[in-house]
Amino acid sequence: MKKSADYKKLIEKFGAKPFNQQLKKKLGKTHKLMELGFIFAHRDFDKYLEMYKRGGRVAIVSGRGPSNYLHLGHLLLFEFIKYLQELLEAEVYIPLSDDEKYFFRKVRNLEEAYKYAIDNALDIISIGYDPEKTHLYVSTKTGWVYPLSVELSRHLTFSTVRATFGFTDETNPGAIFYGAVQAAHILGPTILKGYPVTVPIGMDQDTYMRLTRDIAGKIRVFKPASLYIRFLRGLTGEPMSASNPETCIFTVDDSETVKRKIWEAFTGGRATVKEQKLKGGEPDKCVIFEWLSAYYYEDLKEILEHREKCIGGGIICGECKRMLSEKIVEILVEHRRRREKYRDLLSKYFEHEI
Amino acid sequence: MKKSADYKKLIEKFGAKPFNQQLKKKLGKTHKLMELGFIFAHRDFDKYLEMYKRGGRVAIVSGRGPSNYLHLGHLLLFEFIKYLQELLEAEVYIPLSDDEKYFFRKVRNLEEAYKYAIDNALDIISIGYDPEKTHLYVSTKTGWVYPLSVELSRHLTFSTVRATFGFTDETNPGAIFYGAVQAAHILGPTILKGYPVTVPIGMDQDTYMRLTRDIAGKIRVFKPASLYIRFLRGLTGEPMSASNPETCIFTVDDSETVKRKIWEAFTGGRATVKEQKLKGGEPDKCVIFEWLSAYYYEDLKEILEHREKCIGGGIICGECKRMLSEKIVEILVEHRRRREKYRDLLSKYFEHEI
Repeated sequence: MKKSADYKKLIEKFGAKPFNQQLKKKLGKTHKLMELGFIFAHRDFDKYLEMYKRGGRVAIVSGRGPSNYLHLGHLLLFEFIKYLQELLEAEVYIPLSDDEKYFFRKVRNLEEAYKYAIDNALDIISIGYDPEKTHLYVSTKTGWVYPLSVELSRHLTFSTVRATFGFTDETNPGAIFYGAVQAAHILGPTILKGYPVTVPIGMDQDTYMRLTRDIAGKIRVFKPASLYIRFLRGLTGEPMSASNPETCIFTVDDSETVKRKIWEAFTGGRATVKEQKLKGGEPDKCVIFEWLSAYYYEDLKEILEHREKCIGGGIICGECKRMLSEKIVEILVEHRRRREKYRDLLSKYFEHEI
Repeated sequence: MKKSADYKKLIEKFGAKPFNQQLKKKLGKTHKLMELGFIFAHRDFDKYLEMYKRGGRVAIVSGRGPSNYLHLGHLLLFEFIKYLQELLEAEVYIPLSDDEKYFFRKVRNLEEAYKYAIDNALDIISIGYDPEKTHLYVSTKTGWVYPLSVELSRHLTFSTVRATFGFTDETNPGAIFYGAVQAAHILGPTILKGYPVTVPIGMDQDTYMRLTRDIAGKIRVFKPASLYIRFLRGLTGEPMSASNPETCIFTVDDSETVKRKIWEAFTGGRATVKEQKLKGGEPDKCVIFEWLSAYYYEDLKEILEHREKCIGGGIICGECKRMLSEKIVEILVEHRRRREKYRDLLSKYFEHEI
């Protein structure tokens, strides 16, 4: 990945550490996203691994704000978490933060958030999570969330949360409180069950992570570890975002929509087929190549072969798009088949009635 | 009562109405606190009464922040509420706001607040509340409180709650959110059950009431009515306050403490017994006379006779203090006897497990 200014700041100023070979070796079995450099930094993940290796039980927390359908980027993240769960025998906690989405005006009411929460949950468990070790819950429907948020709130001040979230006079007072609720989601498994926690997050969420780690320091529990994930770029070249539908493929998109979105995607191709055959493509710029690496190929060798072929002018963009389209349609058909299989099992994963 | 500047502001600027003869007549049976002028103003209590008279079911909400034992002033308020409950066949909701006391640093943790909540609850039900129509709950232990607070929070802004509560940079973000939680307590019976609500409050709490009435207006439900209560003055002449123990008699005070506190109370007496017999006392200044009116005498005629006797020099402070001490000790002995009787019934009054 490109070592951006933000990345340097994260490592140099805020004290995160690069996710290096040594750590991969400690983990044993690695995951393709690690090989491809999508997992690029961490905080205290080495300490967390040590606790696991000394025989301790560990947990992973990965929240979802339910204000839309899931897209393929989310599925990739939750596949990675499933790999970690199996490797570390971890308990996985998945808070569905309806309150957050309401406070920040991403949904009209809690009912709308709830509808998406249940739909998202079904997508997530369909990946094949173990119901015994996977705990989903809707934030406002779970008895321990509010009292724990209240307890933790005292370790925050208005000025700290303002610095993190950036408020105005018009801000919903709930958005100001939400820093404490998020800390409760992350620290819940540690405080209530004694498990050290790792949170896989995007670099832009690091400020919230620091807020929560500060609280953990004050109440003297294990500071949650984090794994920093670079998400796949969106089809248009912009970041993937559910509120910008052309950047991503939703799990509910039909085959025609998939084909159209991929057809219109940003590539590393040249102006004409002739030019491309002559000069070769630019796979390191190309979103389609990035997506093929993540979704089409199983191992690194094949990915590198494809890259060489593109650079050598041996394949043109239309072919790559077709390959990706067919693969994505296949993935979605399979995903929806699994979804139906998991539908009746959904309640087993929830901490509360659904 | 004295028509203070605050009182005038409440009536003239903020649109509360005097609690007048006409309203008393509408109520039918009055309560001694009304006759003595302790209930002095209201908002929309006339509308609320009309809804009741047209056959609607109504509710009363009266919260308690559990950070100490109850004192006799609280008992008097809850006796008044019981009278209202019986007169109007009202459902009474009593939120015990452990979250509030924690946010505003009146307790060290939620466990401490919980301990007082249960103790306060026992004091309250011992007054003789009907378990079928009386609903106590601890704020953080009640499923509907947080989601309803979340829903209502969007109708508040940071600037509104800052204007009401007066925050600084050091404020707990929970205190900022608490405006929404309080609105949920007050509006809960209206939103969830359809009952119009009345809240008996002190004049100093009117800003919170206005905040909640604004929200009710926005979501188009009955704006909660209020009854403004002037509380009995404390024994030292200052306002009664649990955090200033000499001002009040706690339900847990022993007889020696009662006698000492009353002996040291602020009276309307003269410098010497001789002077008092000559000039007479000043009952309208006297805290002991105020307490005798509230706790010793049953009817107004006796109160007026005592007043005349004092003015005429026919009784001196020591006698009044003795009368009051004996009565208060008697009230507390009887109260504690009832408390023991009600102990096993406590869970019947709660909305959740205790």
